[in-house]
Amino acid sequence: MSDAPRLTHLDAAGAANMVDVADKQVTDRVAVAEGEVVMRAETLDLILSGNAKKGDVIGTARLAGIMAAKRTHELIPLCHALLLSKVAVEIEPAPALPGLVVRATVRTSGQTGVEMEALTAVTVACLTVYDMAKAVDRFMRIEKVRLLEKSGGRSGHWQAD
Amino acid sequence: MSDAPRLTHLDAAGAANMVDVADKQVTDRVAVAEGEVVMRAETLDLILSGNAKKGDVIGTARLAGIMAAKRTHELIPLCHALLLSKVAVEIEPAPALPGLVVRATVRTSGQTGVEMEALTAVTVACLTVYDMAKAVDRFMRIEKVRLLEKSGGRSGHWQAD
Amino acid sequence: MSDAPRLTHLDAAGAANMVDVADKQVTDRVAVAEGEVVMRAETLDLILSGNAKKGDVIGTARLAGIMAAKRTHELIPLCHALLLSKVAVEIEPAPALPGLVVRATVRTSGQTGVEMEALTAVTVACLTVYDMAKAVDRFMRIEKVRLLEKSGGRSGHWQAD
Amino acid sequence: MSDAPRLTHLDAAGAANMVDVADKQVTDRVAVAEGEVVMRAETLDLILSGNAKKGDVIGTARLAGIMAAKRTHELIPLCHALLLSKVAVEIEPAPALPGLVVRATVRTSGQTGVEMEALTAVTVACLTVYDMAKAVDRFMRIEKVRLLEKSGGRSGHWQAD
Amino acid sequence: MSDAPRLTHLDAAGAANMVDVADKQVTDRVAVAEGEVVMRAETLDLILSGNAKKGDVIGTARLAGIMAAKRTHELIPLCHALLLSKVAVEIEPAPALPGLVVRATVRTSGQTGVEMEALTAVTVACLTVYDMAKAVDRFMRIEKVRLLEKSGGRSGHWQAD
Amino acid sequence: MSDAPRLTHLDAAGAANMVDVADKQVTDRVAVAEGEVVMRAETLDLILSGNAKKGDVIGTARLAGIMAAKRTHELIPLCHALLLSKVAVEIEPAPALPGLVVRATVRTSGQTGVEMEALTAVTVACLTVYDMAKAVDRFMRIEKVRLLEKSGGRSGHWQAD
Repeated sequence: MSDAPRLTHLDAAGAANMVDVADKQVTDRVAVAEGEVVMRAETLDLILSGNAKKGDVIGTARLAGIMAAKRTHELIPLCHALLLSKVAVEIEPAPALPGLVVRATVRTSGQTGVEMEALTAVTVACLTVYDMAKAVDRFMRIEKVRLLEKSGGRSGHWQAD
Repeated sequence: MSDAPRLTHLDAAGAANMVDVADKQVTDRVAVAEGEVVMRAETLDLILSGNAKKGDVIGTARLAGIMAAKRTHELIPLCHALLLSKVAVEIEPAPALPGLVVRATVRTSGQTGVEMEALTAVTVACLTVYDMAKAVDRFMRIEKVRLLEKSGGRSGHWQAD
Repeated sequence: MSDAPRLTHLDAAGAANMVDVADKQVTDRVAVAEGEVVMRAETLDLILSGNAKKGDVIGTARLAGIMAAKRTHELIPLCHALLLSKVAVEIEPAPALPGLVVRATVRTSGQTGVEMEALTAVTVACLTVYDMAKAVDRFMRIEKVRLLEKSGGRSGHWQAD
Repeated sequence: MSDAPRLTHLDAAGAANMVDVADKQVTDRVAVAEGEVVMRAETLDLILSGNAKKGDVIGTARLAGIMAAKRTHELIPLCHALLLSKVAVEIEPAPALPGLVVRATVRTSGQTGVEMEALTAVTVACLTVYDMAKAVDRFMRIEKVRLLEKSGGRSGHWQAD
Repeated sequence: MSDAPRLTHLDAAGAANMVDVADKQVTDRVAVAEGEVVMRAETLDLILSGNAKKGDVIGTARLAGIMAAKRTHELIPLCHALLLSKVAVEIEPAPALPGLVVRATVRTSGQTGVEMEALTAVTVACLTVYDMAKAVDRFMRIEKVRLLEKSGGRSGHWQAD
Repeated sequence: MSDAPRLTHLDAAGAANMVDVADKQVTDRVAVAEGEVVMRAETLDLILSGNAKKGDVIGTARLAGIMAAKRTHELIPLCHALLLSKVAVEIEPAPALPGLVVRATVRTSGQTGVEMEALTAVTVACLTVYDMAKAVDRFMRIEKVRLLEKSGGRSGHWQAD
């Protein structure tokens, strides 16, 4: 009731529950998230040379991210299920890291935002890259997983920096 | 055939497939992974003050991580299913970040390692923290998700320095 | 065709199928269900003393119930999938049983009621309490799982006695 | 460490985690659980007359119970996944209740017992009966869900009086 | 951009992604699909004689098909999740094959068609028949899985021949 | 009781249940299944020209098949869960059909065979091809889904002529 910031998933007694969104507006909502898998330069080369032929590490990670976005509400306990109208995952090589940058865009028409769906797509795509390259590189790290942009809902459009 | 490093999930033609592990030894395998959610100091305070009463953000994230570990093979396309004998997730406040550090330990007796299960537990626990605090902090980031230690299997014990 | 009561999931030939709800109205629907886990007094004490510190049995059961509600349509063969706008699970000690009383409230805007979602939340929360206490009490029982109240849809508001 | 009874899923700090079962013996384990759905006599008649033709309420509930047993570890947060070698669900009419009695027998060769799998089969079968009959009876209740018998593991054979 | 036919799930660079359906109309959509399990005449007799008593092969396959339809978006990577308002599966003996003919009808109100849901129901029902009869017949085949009819959406009503 | 062939999933009363496999031997088991998606020649050309660049239809279908094999026991009601040690899916163009031929090889060390896992991989891969090409071809059909070969278990090696 007060205007002090509070954690919306906790009720007055501090118990975790799914927020009631029944009275929120149905609007077109989009979220964009990003993350990166940092690896040795040789690992990136191996992934990209494989990619030149068949694209399988990147293609597999992209599909894993898309499929995971659809299951976000099963993984994150207090997330509402949503019908996603679009999930797109792009994975680009970043030789300067060296590594791969994963970006996910998720769109829905609904009562809650799709940040968690975009972030879940990014992290599962990153984990899939890790899985496929871990036999050759034990020092990979997933870094900088964050929200880049969101729109729709009461708070309108928001963009990081 | 050669000893050059290669991506084990890609067959000779570059197509992604599940590696055949039928001839690998069944051994006791353990993996430990870690990651962090970096946030504003006020966000951490809110989480910890809630925690003083009911522990719900941290408790919810711990359970989400444990449950996700059991579903790793559904999320990561080329991961083998395994029967996990232990999954433990610890989440500690790190005021210097400021943020939370998540550490997962997974154990099995099987033919493949449990790195992916430990990393999946860490990332889903981090995503759950993010979900529960996102209404008060849009600048959180998930960082430094990595393997700390593994044992069992052909390669024996390994530890990140 | 007649007005005799019949089992709606069975077609004219007696075969089980999902009822067609396409022509039902989309209305705001709420259901409240309840159940109890009856146990020895010492078991309840153990749960509550744990609860005084960290709330983990009750907190874990509450989350399990919430997450199960979202998967009701996967468990109950002829249930329609729904987007739940709210799931709340409350678990209260009842020393007179002795045991715990679990109550779930589920809300949606849709074409079918959410009784099954509320009842699924209650039963899975009860099973989770059972799982966490079974090492100290083999005589627990889940009792009186029932619908308390529902509203929305053609039949309007209904309340058990 | 002491011999006082304690909740095995809570660690020393009271945090919920999956118990480590790596050092438990792999033995043949069986559990039998039971529960009942109490209903109006007319409801039971409707179910049984349907059953005389095609068996669909009872057949549907039996399958739902079997399928749910296989997913117990997804529903109960701290349950270990197990490979079940047998799941059998029997559903018998009990005119004296009036209602149906559901009994599930689950068997595995593994390191943990299968009580939760048997109890999950029973409750989901009961919920499925409820779902299929709820249009004609709003006063059904699920009652007396309990373990009848278990064998295997350190504690040997146990039977509820 | 051009009017040449193209595979809608591939973007301009050839990468697989979920098509954005946010701007498609919400309409009432129906799809009907069919397939058959061809088997030895003795196998069909066994299934039908069992069916005379309890209907279990056909009843089990029908439920498996219905439940699978609800999970289509988890199985088919680029399929959108939808709330199905109806799923009906009919299975008829076809002595001339000899075998069983499976037909599924799926209905929704949404932005994408339900062909894949109907086809998934058909194939999983066929696989379930196969599973239950495979001990007596190793030469069964699933044949002629195809769409019979669809309506709703931009393309209106369509019927095979 | 008699030696007459019978459907093993039905008990003496004709009720469907999971067969008890606890007393079967743990052996190395392999199954190979095949199926085809028949389409217009232009559709095959489109898929293959996409494939020349990025391989996405075939790559996506291969992954969908692999992932589905791991979930066979969730889809087929009376299938036992198994830990698969290998799942490989090959998809080859067959201009003479015209169409694609899908072949899956699954391996495990367990108490039941993996026919259903191989057949599930084949059908879900076929459905995924269908999904990605359905916008350009409404007349595709899935045909000749069958077991080619199996080994392991009491019946030894078996091959379809």
